[in-house]
Amino acid sequence: MTDFRLTTFGESHGVAVGGVIEGCPAGIKLDVQLIKEDLARRATGKTSSESQRREADEVEFLSGLLDGVTLGTPIAFIVRNTDARPEDYVDLKDVFRPSHADFTYQQKYGIRDWRGGGRASARTMLPYVVAGAIAKQLLAAHGIKINASVQSIGGETDPEKIEALLKQCREEGDTVGGIVHGSITGLPVGLGEPLDDKFQTCLAKAMFTIPAVKGFEYGDGFAMASMRGTEANDAFVKADDGTVRLATNHSGGIQGGITNGEEVFFNVAFKPIPTLGRGNRHDVCALPRATVIVEAMAALTTITFL
Amino acid sequence: MTDFRLTTFGESHGVAVGGVIEGCPAGIKLDVQLIKEDLARRATGKTSSESQRREADEVEFLSGLLDGVTLGTPIAFIVRNTDARPEDYVDLKDVFRPSHADFTYQQKYGIRDWRGGGRASARTMLPYVVAGAIAKQLLAAHGIKINASVQSIGGETDPEKIEALLKQCREEGDTVGGIVHGSITGLPVGLGEPLDDKFQTCLAKAMFTIPAVKGFEYGDGFAMASMRGTEANDAFVKADDGTVRLATNHSGGIQGGITNGEEVFFNVAFKPIPTLGRGNRHDVCALPRATVIVEAMAALTTITFL
Amino acid sequence: MTDFRLTTFGESHGVAVGGVIEGCPAGIKLDVQLIKEDLARRATGKTSSESQRREADEVEFLSGLLDGVTLGTPIAFIVRNTDARPEDYVDLKDVFRPSHADFTYQQKYGIRDWRGGGRASARTMLPYVVAGAIAKQLLAAHGIKINASVQSIGGETDPEKIEALLKQCREEGDTVGGIVHGSITGLPVGLGEPLDDKFQTCLAKAMFTIPAVKGFEYGDGFAMASMRGTEANDAFVKADDGTVRLATNHSGGIQGGITNGEEVFFNVAFKPIPTLGRGNRHDVCALPRATVIVEAMAALTTITFL
Amino acid sequence: MTDFRLTTFGESHGVAVGGVIEGCPAGIKLDVQLIKEDLARRATGKTSSESQRREADEVEFLSGLLDGVTLGTPIAFIVRNTDARPEDYVDLKDVFRPSHADFTYQQKYGIRDWRGGGRASARTMLPYVVAGAIAKQLLAAHGIKINASVQSIGGETDPEKIEALLKQCREEGDTVGGIVHGSITGLPVGLGEPLDDKFQTCLAKAMFTIPAVKGFEYGDGFAMASMRGTEANDAFVKADDGTVRLATNHSGGIQGGITNGEEVFFNVAFKPIPTLGRGNRHDVCALPRATVIVEAMAALTTITFL
Repeated sequence: MTDFRLTTFGESHGVAVGGVIEGCPAGIKLDVQLIKEDLARRATGKTSSESQRREADEVEFLSGLLDGVTLGTPIAFIVRNTDARPEDYVDLKDVFRPSHADFTYQQKYGIRDWRGGGRASARTMLPYVVAGAIAKQLLAAHGIKINASVQSIGGETDPEKIEALLKQCREEGDTVGGIVHGSITGLPVGLGEPLDDKFQTCLAKAMFTIPAVKGFEYGDGFAMASMRGTEANDAFVKADDGTVRLATNHSGGIQGGITNGEEVFFNVAFKPIPTLGRGNRHDVCALPRATVIVEAMAALTTITFL
Repeated sequence: MTDFRLTTFGESHGVAVGGVIEGCPAGIKLDVQLIKEDLARRATGKTSSESQRREADEVEFLSGLLDGVTLGTPIAFIVRNTDARPEDYVDLKDVFRPSHADFTYQQKYGIRDWRGGGRASARTMLPYVVAGAIAKQLLAAHGIKINASVQSIGGETDPEKIEALLKQCREEGDTVGGIVHGSITGLPVGLGEPLDDKFQTCLAKAMFTIPAVKGFEYGDGFAMASMRGTEANDAFVKADDGTVRLATNHSGGIQGGITNGEEVFFNVAFKPIPTLGRGNRHDVCALPRATVIVEAMAALTTITFL
Repeated sequence: MTDFRLTTFGESHGVAVGGVIEGCPAGIKLDVQLIKEDLARRATGKTSSESQRREADEVEFLSGLLDGVTLGTPIAFIVRNTDARPEDYVDLKDVFRPSHADFTYQQKYGIRDWRGGGRASARTMLPYVVAGAIAKQLLAAHGIKINASVQSIGGETDPEKIEALLKQCREEGDTVGGIVHGSITGLPVGLGEPLDDKFQTCLAKAMFTIPAVKGFEYGDGFAMASMRGTEANDAFVKADDGTVRLATNHSGGIQGGITNGEEVFFNVAFKPIPTLGRGNRHDVCALPRATVIVEAMAALTTITFL
Repeated sequence: MTDFRLTTFGESHGVAVGGVIEGCPAGIKLDVQLIKEDLARRATGKTSSESQRREADEVEFLSGLLDGVTLGTPIAFIVRNTDARPEDYVDLKDVFRPSHADFTYQQKYGIRDWRGGGRASARTMLPYVVAGAIAKQLLAAHGIKINASVQSIGGETDPEKIEALLKQCREEGDTVGGIVHGSITGLPVGLGEPLDDKFQTCLAKAMFTIPAVKGFEYGDGFAMASMRGTEANDAFVKADDGTVRLATNHSGGIQGGITNGEEVFFNVAFKPIPTLGRGNRHDVCALPRATVIVEAMAALTTITFL
């Protein structure tokens, strides 16, 4: 296992959010354009439910690079909060919004940054997106690809129905939950540990770090709780080239905590955004923007096993 | 956060399994009977699907105790594998059983203990059960209670139907999956960290350590992905005694990664046991025996936040 | 033990150096003036051996504070490298300076930031000084005081002789080593762990993080290797108020890895600065400036045990 | 860096001491005889100052091995305390021995195992010796050799004078301190991290884990505090085969926290054993027996960097 790890900081309406990556190998030329693209995916999503909060989200690298090449030393970066409008929140100073972290933060710390969601805001995911974009570049060099997409929103899987549902929610000042489907391909056999750091354990840990996530399953997941062993088992078959493969992949690419060379796939359930009826400024659904976060989390998990 | 942590060891058919608990407070009188009861729950379950492998499962404490009272130093314990019958497995020496960890272990390590499931066996959960029984005693002293029960087996929730299903599976040499429901009550407000160590993240991490677990959800979980915000939000209400409570608990007792004082509840999905048609020696379903493991994992997670 | 921990970043001639403090309690009003004073001590020292490299060393806080009060969330800060003059180093691009880290860095990473000492530069200590100044404030609130001073330079302990020695070194283009004496008073009984995290172990670990440190001893240190047990033992005496104290303190305030309430004192040996004959720009001796770094390291160690 | 790490347990007069090694590579045939030899070195030393407490010190392996070959899973082992005579200590139940950990333990935990030194006893080093003997085998396969020897006892370096001094101490019921010299050869260039995990930091951390250690220095150590830069610097020279080497080794094989391929050497200062006048049962000096512990600690440190 490598030692690629991320420390993040920043409140949603403070000076900046950012992170420090330790353990990134030296001598890697970073493609800054790919980082910018992932930041844009996070900021705007692809659908009409996109947030109206338009931040430049320009990342500044402070260390760990020389002419764009990694030095093997900690890579620090920040994104300044240029569009922070704390005055939008001033009437929330003494109010606990339902199903937000306002109440628990106040109780735990005796103080909180009432200017937005503070450390519970989805904006704290931004440093993960930056580090994830770097991790994806390292993984791609090993032939490993990571992809996340919207599986369903409000229970709908059909794009047209999703679009209609989002429009309706916007009109009603309501929000809606959804499921993101993730996939990791090109994995070698043997990643993961038998007990304490199973591949799926580390994936689950990463996904529950994302705000609003309420469930995680991999392979056939919860559906396997209703299956028989004869349905669920993945038989070994010998491929034409002599390699051992699986006839099916109910297991989702992991056995005993260790990757078996097949695709690792998983679902992540998001609850509806708790902020209602705030008009255009806020999202109706976390999902289109959340896919790049799920990818980042999967990349940051996978890289630790290489 | 306290520093209660467990290191485990042991293959299913080696000399012994066991563990070392560090960070247990000094001066606690342990109730050994409660540990024995949990070991019995793990060994036999309550239903007719119980395993025929009857081990004494007698725990020996090697350190950290003086006259049954904790010294604040590491508590080491072992359970010897008295009933290990490696000859039952000798014909599996060169075979990879489907949906077991045989293949991935062999690929990862180039060697494996073919005498049973080795480190991937459910027997490796035994040290967690011992440590969990200790953690539950410490939690009880704080008024925190942990409970896990069978929610469904093979999709059935009715006890009679479950019994019939298990009987059928046994006759057909088949196995079946299920869902365990867990609950933690009596929690104070404020346990958990905003991002890296959210309460739910640590719970999920612990549950995916258990072999055969394919999914985890807390609060209303995956169902929230189909909900609207207006349905999912938990409104604050002022109780008669002036304390702030929630009118509903869709969130499952956690907001922004931090407990809010309500019940934390969750579901854990188990796939069917992959070993088929082995007659009486093996379980038809992991579930009745798994409830005590889920409780142990929940206790070992909760204790780290106190 | 609390969870106060520091992650640092930055090369000496990159964009900035800085750090992220996690685990700092919420609700603490920080005295920024004390941080500035420690930064000034690090930048200039007190004696004529002070560095000519005059950086503003202005610290900018990016997160974790609201109106100067800690939020309990990560505190990130940066100090930009305004006076970085990489052109001074351009002729060193392909040269390994003796007793510097140039060679080992190049071999380890295959790349290095040749613009100054990179990550091996003493400038990387700056974030520790900032975090240490914060830790000292928290400790002071518990009645714990930390102090470090020059014990000897080039084997001389007399201030006048030290001054003469430093003058001579400057004229000869030479450098010289020295010893810093550290002291921690006001400690409660009971800090430290029996084996893995003894108080002295964590102190030693912190001190060897400082560049140029070659030795660490606490209590009577190396001198105890020549002592008899009858000389070295610290007898217990009962003070007039009935409390148990020690008649002597050869042990240096720690027994079995755990503080006993007496003063913890220690020495840190620094080798001579390896950069010779560079005129006014570089220090003749690390020491006057190093005392504040030793204090910071002692504070960052002690705070983790509270 | 590999993940070879040791968790230890056991009080000196409890049931057993032992340890769990995680992260040991799979497929290594262990030479048990080498482990036994190191246990004998720890138990008896070589000189007449040896302890009279003769324990069998037989190690039992509980997991992680199949036919003496490592499985890549946790290796657990125990050594039972067969010669524990708690009755020798019964009159110490309510007494704090000077310069022992009795007082600090009682204060910290409110309870202690008064039957001997408990967790502060030198017997707790036994698991490190077992794990160190395994680590040395792994290192030897990489061409890395570790050696520790007595440098001085009571300030004497001449063997005959040491022998006389020990005899005198025994007659007078006194004890005496000493210095162990350690050496690591065959190291590749590049082990160690620039700041947080410098090679020397990890070595120091390991050495201060040993009871009675009061000082650690590497390379020319404290003597460098009296040196000039012109004396202390190690010039690069080109060897006949074109490789870069050092003309001198004042630095002790490490620069900027990273090994440079030269010998790493260091000194460890031990205080006198605090237990006086107890006749034959106890050691007069920790040192002859301590060399194997220093080797074990150096090996356990070095292995984490491979």
